[in-house]
Amino acid sequence: MKLEYDSKYFMNKAIEEAQLALSKGEVPIGAVVVIENQIIARAHNLTETLNDVTAHAEILAITAAENYLGGKFLNGCSMYVTLEPCQMCAGALYWSRISNLFYAAKDLKRGFTIMGSTLHPKTKVNSGVLENESKELLEKFFIARRNLN
Amino acid sequence: MKLEYDSKYFMNKAIEEAQLALSKGEVPIGAVVVIENQIIARAHNLTETLNDVTAHAEILAITAAENYLGGKFLNGCSMYVTLEPCQMCAGALYWSRISNLFYAAKDLKRGFTIMGSTLHPKTKVNSGVLENESKELLEKFFIARRNLN
Repeated sequence: MKLEYDSKYFMNKAIEEAQLALSKGEVPIGAVVVIENQIIARAHNLTETLNDVTAHAEILAITAAENYLGGKFLNGCSMYVTLEPCQMCAGALYWSRISNLFYAAKDLKRGFTIMGSTLHPKTKVNSGVLENESKELLEKFFIARRNLN
Repeated sequence: MKLEYDSKYFMNKAIEEAQLALSKGEVPIGAVVVIENQIIARAHNLTETLNDVTAHAEILAITAAENYLGGKFLNGCSMYVTLEPCQMCAGALYWSRISNLFYAAKDLKRGFTIMGSTLHPKTKVNSGVLENESKELLEKFFIARRNLN
């Protein structure tokens, strides 16, 4: 029996990463990078843990994927990320020339679309896969944080 | 005698970093981060060495500065960088809330201005310090690379 790998399968793996971030008190965002149905990088937001604004899930996943491949381009790869990338991460994806970007929930405040950043013309974009699951995690985080203040 | 530290002094330090990049066969771009007249981070482009599109001088300098400060915000800090940041680096600077950005040469093709990215509203921007010195280094690199092909 051949296992079915689809965008939902891989986005679920990104959600698992977001859950790991949540368990560390980080804004729950996760990402995986896939090539030929194989996950070659997985990462979650670590900005608080590392005291580093550049430690977004996407940046860490790009670095790990390029390290795995031994090259600095991600053509042929797909990124699955639980929230629409910010302009920093869109800029990193631009340089990586990644083939596909799937994101779950839109970020209407700081997403690259509203901020006006540009992806590489070769990058195909899809959104909405497991959108609700991603949103639920984010809401959980922000409700918990509000109650602490 | 009190030493005079001015934007030229610090941009020269960024140029020194760019020269280090050049000596490694990297596109010669360097950056330093300064707080209260003290350099707390210096970095140069390492994208080829590390096989990592995210290893721009600015990203490495931000990570190092935040690590030094033990916090993820760079308010009160100035970055001196030899080329106008790209949208990835502008996005990282946005998150860092850095107070001042000085860049030497404009990047009319991939700079954040032409790409439409947004810096933090609290970040003041200056350009043109040691512009010619920065351009000369970049031209040196691209002429050498052209002759290799």
